[in-house]
Amino acid sequence: MPISRSLLDSLRKIIPPLDGSLHKGQSGRVGVIGGAQDYTGAPFFAAITALRMGADLSHVICAPSAANAIKSYAPDLIVHPILHPPSSESPSPEKVKSELSSLLSRLHVLVIGPGLGREDYMISYAKTALNLAKENGMYVVLDADALWMLGQDLRILKGYWRAVITPNVMEFKRLSDAVGIDPSTPLDSRASLISKAFGGVTVLQKGPDDVIATNTKGTSSKVAHEISKVPDNIPQEQLEEETITKVDTPGGLKRVGGQGDILSGCVATWLAWGKCYETGAFGDESISITHLPHLAAVGGSVVTRTTSRFAFQKNGRALLTQDLVGEVQRAFLEVFPDSDTPGQKSGKL
Amino acid sequence: MPISRSLLDSLRKIIPPLDGSLHKGQSGRVGVIGGAQDYTGAPFFAAITALRMGADLSHVICAPSAANAIKSYAPDLIVHPILHPPSSESPSPEKVKSELSSLLSRLHVLVIGPGLGREDYMISYAKTALNLAKENGMYVVLDADALWMLGQDLRILKGYWRAVITPNVMEFKRLSDAVGIDPSTPLDSRASLISKAFGGVTVLQKGPDDVIATNTKGTSSKVAHEISKVPDNIPQEQLEEETITKVDTPGGLKRVGGQGDILSGCVATWLAWGKCYETGAFGDESISITHLPHLAAVGGSVVTRTTSRFAFQKNGRALLTQDLVGEVQRAFLEVFPDSDTPGQKSGKL
Repeated sequence: MPISRSLLDSLRKIIPPLDGSLHKGQSGRVGVIGGAQDYTGAPFFAAITALRMGADLSHVICAPSAANAIKSYAPDLIVHPILHPPSSESPSPEKVKSELSSLLSRLHVLVIGPGLGREDYMISYAKTALNLAKENGMYVVLDADALWMLGQDLRILKGYWRAVITPNVMEFKRLSDAVGIDPSTPLDSRASLISKAFGGVTVLQKGPDDVIATNTKGTSSKVAHEISKVPDNIPQEQLEEETITKVDTPGGLKRVGGQGDILSGCVATWLAWGKCYETGAFGDESISITHLPHLAAVGGSVVTRTTSRFAFQKNGRALLTQDLVGEVQRAFLEVFPDSDTPGQKSGKL
Repeated sequence: MPISRSLLDSLRKIIPPLDGSLHKGQSGRVGVIGGAQDYTGAPFFAAITALRMGADLSHVICAPSAANAIKSYAPDLIVHPILHPPSSESPSPEKVKSELSSLLSRLHVLVIGPGLGREDYMISYAKTALNLAKENGMYVVLDADALWMLGQDLRILKGYWRAVITPNVMEFKRLSDAVGIDPSTPLDSRASLISKAFGGVTVLQKGPDDVIATNTKGTSSKVAHEISKVPDNIPQEQLEEETITKVDTPGGLKRVGGQGDILSGCVATWLAWGKCYETGAFGDESISITHLPHLAAVGGSVVTRTTSRFAFQKNGRALLTQDLVGEVQRAFLEVFPDSDTPGQKSGKL
């Protein structure tokens, strides 16, 4: 089903109030793990988008070889060059794990994948970070090479419903094969089956329309309930459902590389807000926290597509992903007018 | 008490004249010590703000690992990568001290803390720099991890009234505990007690309103008088007072990380001007130099809050700290209209 009014109203409730009542960090502390020898733009785009969406703090955790480039893109990011390749002079993996642990304990959400690459040591650190995030009950977004990693070992995310995965067409096909979806299944039905196979992980299938599916009917959903630290007062029955949302908000028509990183940063900010919402920071408690990943994926999709449309209108064929960063604010206000003022009004598409 | 007309008039007197009478450096030479593995944006924001406030020269003293990123943000800064971590190939701490000494002797003010981190070697260099600054009678601003350092050893700043400390809510609470303030003390009264405990150090307590307190009633004030190189012709009695100013100038409503670095750069520039004023460079001698730190903290607070408000009006929830840098000039002219012309008019809020 397309985006409903009530879904937009729910999204509006997890937007932090802008009335001076919050202090630094309470509008979101986001981390992005990725950035190695070849890729430095991807983690930057995800992390800077989180800030332009309205997060208070945005961290990049990357390989030392990537750090200077990422830092130079914007002084507003906090960049931790702690993912050392193996060498006699590098800190041990245990030391890195301890640093990761300390860092993640201060964040609401972790994006895993942008610019991660597929080198063994980076994949290994990404797995370590994912496990730490799960232990902490953090929200996570998996994209790009983290989806390749997931395809290699489905168990690492199984049953962790605090996760959103954001596959593009190719990544979606690989995951679809990996979880054993019948190739004759209509494309529109597959996202929900993948979500079910992962025990309720939210799937954001990117395409001409984005399909967002959360399916907790699977046998893994009980496991999900346990390992994802749902508060005891949320009944198991709430998990037993299927939610599918189709986002047809017009986007831009240029498919330049990097736009997926804007999306992951955008979804991450919604999830960070969800984490703040979950702790009662915004005063409202009407939304079931088990719906937050689905909401965040929808919110991220709508804002990113609007951002892409605005940037495309200005830049056409010459569109770069950096052009999107400057349009995030306008896109957000297009979808959620008046959300910058204390008396927030309802959203529109 | 709120900002008085006479306080604004005093501030106006320490703004360097813009009439061609000064040469390079006489409108302020500012140094920022900080910037290590993880943090490069913070010292940049403090240093570039000093320039946008009107300082002539702005230096960053940092670890080699941070230098390239900081240099890349703006060619206008002078970046000294001399804070080497300990290794067999690094210069000895004595060599670094000698370099620091030579460098500081050319500056009016030193900001200690933005992006400093808490690694032993950085804290050790920061202490060395603070001691050198005290020996030279330089003004100093302590923020961020330098306040953590201060909490570990209160003696390092005790009695040095040429200092302004700029704690945020968390840092203020830690300092409050460290100096043994009774937890039942009203929040508004604590800044003055902390100032008193430090023998007259000016405390800029950041919050919904900023509270700036200078309290030299304590037993340490005589020590302050001695070690802070007050000229002999200023009577001891002038130190025996308490000044509290509340700054309620509206700021922005976004609490993005980094805005504190804008404030420290802003206060630093006022202090640098104070140092120039003190030497008679601007011709006026009507202000007691023992009031300069309080004046600088108030001036920094007012201009930063105005800067934050202007940047927030443009960027709303999407505000990044880099957006503030471009608003410093307009904010300064808002508070001190006509201060860019030789015949300065009175300030307004």
